[in-house]
Amino acid sequence: MVRGRAAQGPDRQDPQARDRGAGRREGEGRRGLSGALVAELGRLVGAAHVAAPAGSDPELRDATETQALVGHAAAVVRPGDAEEVREVVAWCYDHDVALTPRGGGTGFAGGAVPQGGVVLALDRLDRVRDLDPGRWRAHVEAGVTTATLRRRARESGLDFPPDPGAAEQSQLGGMVATNAGGPHTFGHGPVSRWVTGLEVVLAPGELVTVGGPVRRDVAPYDLRSLLCGSEGTLGVVTAAWLRLVPAPDAELPVLARFADARAGCEAVLAVFAAGLQPAVLDFVDGRTLQAAGEGDGEGFALLAEAAGGRDEAAALRAGLVEVLREAGAVDVVAPEGRSEVEELWRWRSGLTYAVIAARGGKVSEDLAVPVERLDEALAGARAVADRHGLESCAWGHAGDGIVHATFLVDPADAAKLERAAAAAHDVVVLGYALGGTGSGEHGVGLVKRDAVASRTPDALLTAQRAIKDALDPKGLLNPGKKLPVAGRP
Amino acid sequence: MVRGRAAQGPDRQDPQARDRGAGRREGEGRRGLSGALVAELGRLVGAAHVAAPAGSDPELRDATETQALVGHAAAVVRPGDAEEVREVVAWCYDHDVALTPRGGGTGFAGGAVPQGGVVLALDRLDRVRDLDPGRWRAHVEAGVTTATLRRRARESGLDFPPDPGAAEQSQLGGMVATNAGGPHTFGHGPVSRWVTGLEVVLAPGELVTVGGPVRRDVAPYDLRSLLCGSEGTLGVVTAAWLRLVPAPDAELPVLARFADARAGCEAVLAVFAAGLQPAVLDFVDGRTLQAAGEGDGEGFALLAEAAGGRDEAAALRAGLVEVLREAGAVDVVAPEGRSEVEELWRWRSGLTYAVIAARGGKVSEDLAVPVERLDEALAGARAVADRHGLESCAWGHAGDGIVHATFLVDPADAAKLERAAAAAHDVVVLGYALGGTGSGEHGVGLVKRDAVASRTPDALLTAQRAIKDALDPKGLLNPGKKLPVAGRP
Repeated sequence: MVRGRAAQGPDRQDPQARDRGAGRREGEGRRGLSGALVAELGRLVGAAHVAAPAGSDPELRDATETQALVGHAAAVVRPGDAEEVREVVAWCYDHDVALTPRGGGTGFAGGAVPQGGVVLALDRLDRVRDLDPGRWRAHVEAGVTTATLRRRARESGLDFPPDPGAAEQSQLGGMVATNAGGPHTFGHGPVSRWVTGLEVVLAPGELVTVGGPVRRDVAPYDLRSLLCGSEGTLGVVTAAWLRLVPAPDAELPVLARFADARAGCEAVLAVFAAGLQPAVLDFVDGRTLQAAGEGDGEGFALLAEAAGGRDEAAALRAGLVEVLREAGAVDVVAPEGRSEVEELWRWRSGLTYAVIAARGGKVSEDLAVPVERLDEALAGARAVADRHGLESCAWGHAGDGIVHATFLVDPADAAKLERAAAAAHDVVVLGYALGGTGSGEHGVGLVKRDAVASRTPDALLTAQRAIKDALDPKGLLNPGKKLPVAGRP
Repeated sequence: MVRGRAAQGPDRQDPQARDRGAGRREGEGRRGLSGALVAELGRLVGAAHVAAPAGSDPELRDATETQALVGHAAAVVRPGDAEEVREVVAWCYDHDVALTPRGGGTGFAGGAVPQGGVVLALDRLDRVRDLDPGRWRAHVEAGVTTATLRRRARESGLDFPPDPGAAEQSQLGGMVATNAGGPHTFGHGPVSRWVTGLEVVLAPGELVTVGGPVRRDVAPYDLRSLLCGSEGTLGVVTAAWLRLVPAPDAELPVLARFADARAGCEAVLAVFAAGLQPAVLDFVDGRTLQAAGEGDGEGFALLAEAAGGRDEAAALRAGLVEVLREAGAVDVVAPEGRSEVEELWRWRSGLTYAVIAARGGKVSEDLAVPVERLDEALAGARAVADRHGLESCAWGHAGDGIVHATFLVDPADAAKLERAAAAAHDVVVLGYALGGTGSGEHGVGLVKRDAVASRTPDALLTAQRAIKDALDPKGLLNPGKKLPVAGRP
């Protein structure tokens, strides 16, 4: 919704990707190409499951953040199982047609915005193939939503900890492709920590499994981890074997408010120094609170969660309350009742919508820094906003040093959108300047591709490019995402 | 000590690797080549740090398991820092000389046994560059021993959980290269889960860092995880940034004895079903106990560890005692005093030496299976031993389904060594047949290379080969390890 096509859109980027997307039939116009593709793919997956998208279709854009970034594709194909995915990949690879795998479309970086060719939507692969409570594991297809997976695990007394936003819409395949995280990543790590095996279609059209239900396997190179976070550029994940853990008996939140960001960031370090291990250690800055109708923009809040057995969680919560008070919290709330706890999390989930409501739109980046530089990252993001004449706010995962640096914009204000895109670039640069990274959990996609590449040493770009070429020699898997097409931007 | 050179030795394998190892000076004999290499490398790292090894030198063999597997090398070079490592790699790559990185040499799979060229020993890179208790992290060079790292962390109230054997000798670089594990892997995962960044020399001689102290980074492909477990075939790790965690207040072991393996394996599943999460869930079979002078070979023991805050650990220990008793344990010991706890772990660590003492030597494999197939894996390994006329025993990490299937041999008995090598191959095959893997934690090296490759689908071998070629186009980094040199064996 917030980035202008002129600033970030595909038309200015990746002419090579676009050429590949057009396939071999160079004499055909897009409509003719599209019709032929739809017919051929229909033979593989059934005519009802292929469509030629129009410019406004949801498959051509991200569902949430970057709706102004509109891609183009000759066909949207929805295979019904892994074997049909393999057939589609093989056919496209054989015919030099680019493929953009698509899950729930809830990414922020344009990773699922097609740059031509075929959108390969995985939502029909929605089976929980197995959920084995006695062995703490699940075998789940790519199109299963995060909410379904987490709910099914909880119904069996287990937990799948990664909890990115948009749980009702985001899908496991996309979670793997972005190595998604969320608040509970502080205590439990991102998706890759929970994947013991992947079923994946590799170029030029091979359905393979890497790992499986076994919890440890050092025989092959760690292709599982390599595929996690590869944003569909190295293969198409069709299913995963996941580790689960027994769900904690208690999950007790603590919300602490501080006078300003500096005090809050000091309190984060105090939690580390005290050796306390909450499952969540998030922050919300004063301007975000203000957008939600609280305070004057100067405050700062930390949201922690103490999880575990009842006694253990209670003791940890007490420790958090004590440490946060000693660190200067002006107010600490530790709700006990179920409804109060749920209300606190609803408040937390609603912050992003409050921020959007302030000006109608936002651009959120996700730099990550070493935890002791959180305060500098916040100050730096504000300085970037000032430099570009933008309102800003920030929230994120304090314990992991992840800052969702957010610029408030009116989506109808093209000049401000341009400035927000420039600010987003500067925020990526800021992440590296502070000894961190330009993306802590959202991924690179199209939006951050050139900014990330501009801060990546040549040798590391070369190594990544070599891996990309090794697994996708024709460059047809989600072309133009993650890495620049050739060399530096 | 246990595998004959005739059965597994380098002379029958990898003629291509050997040719590469010989470098460009084809007219020279090995001694002349060696002399020239020693002189050239001496200019890079100082003459005192280069030697021409003789056939009996420790740098040509594994320190423990496979001492009969003797490699050959023209030089052993010991750079003093990462920049010197880079210079050595660049020089060797430029001159087509193979490199075998070497840590503590405590692997079991011949991964550090050179097949010509240069042994690149990393033991002089032994600095703990930083250990920051307040941020739960360390920055450690490749040559730092496991024991030093764990001790330094504990001195700061923190824990680095991976605990492979031979802690006084094994080094961080080797732990990364093998993605090492150990008993605490059940609760805390292997080395890769703790690595947030690597400093690594990539071909043809680039010193790069991937990640760093930041806890999350999804901007690049996950080269960190790809390098973990790559056995020195993709790059030479010179240092790592590691996450640490606050050390638990209490670590309370529980030792339960069962009538037989079936009862013990049922008890493992009972621990899962009860939702108990010990940090360790190891097993020791009856024949291993017998070698240690206990029982008639029919019994079975489980060793669990309850870790956490004092109350939490005590409650978990009580839960384990109850579940293990209900599952049919004939005896459960839960020592409380520090000296009793230490004695229990000494007993556990001593088992491997008791087994070696029984016949003078052993061959240990490390298949891993889904946890519910542990009993089948144990029965299958015994059947393999029977088929080859060998005595066998087993211990391992029950919770992770890892079986160290061990064949007792007299190292002077060449015929039995041959049979043990054949049995080891069959055990790898068994791991895959049971839905698991041929290596759960030791790695592939030379010893398991062909057996693992024989059970790996072509598409997966092809993908791994493509990655190897992408990052090591000349095939000079630890040639002949992990993957067959070309195609299937």
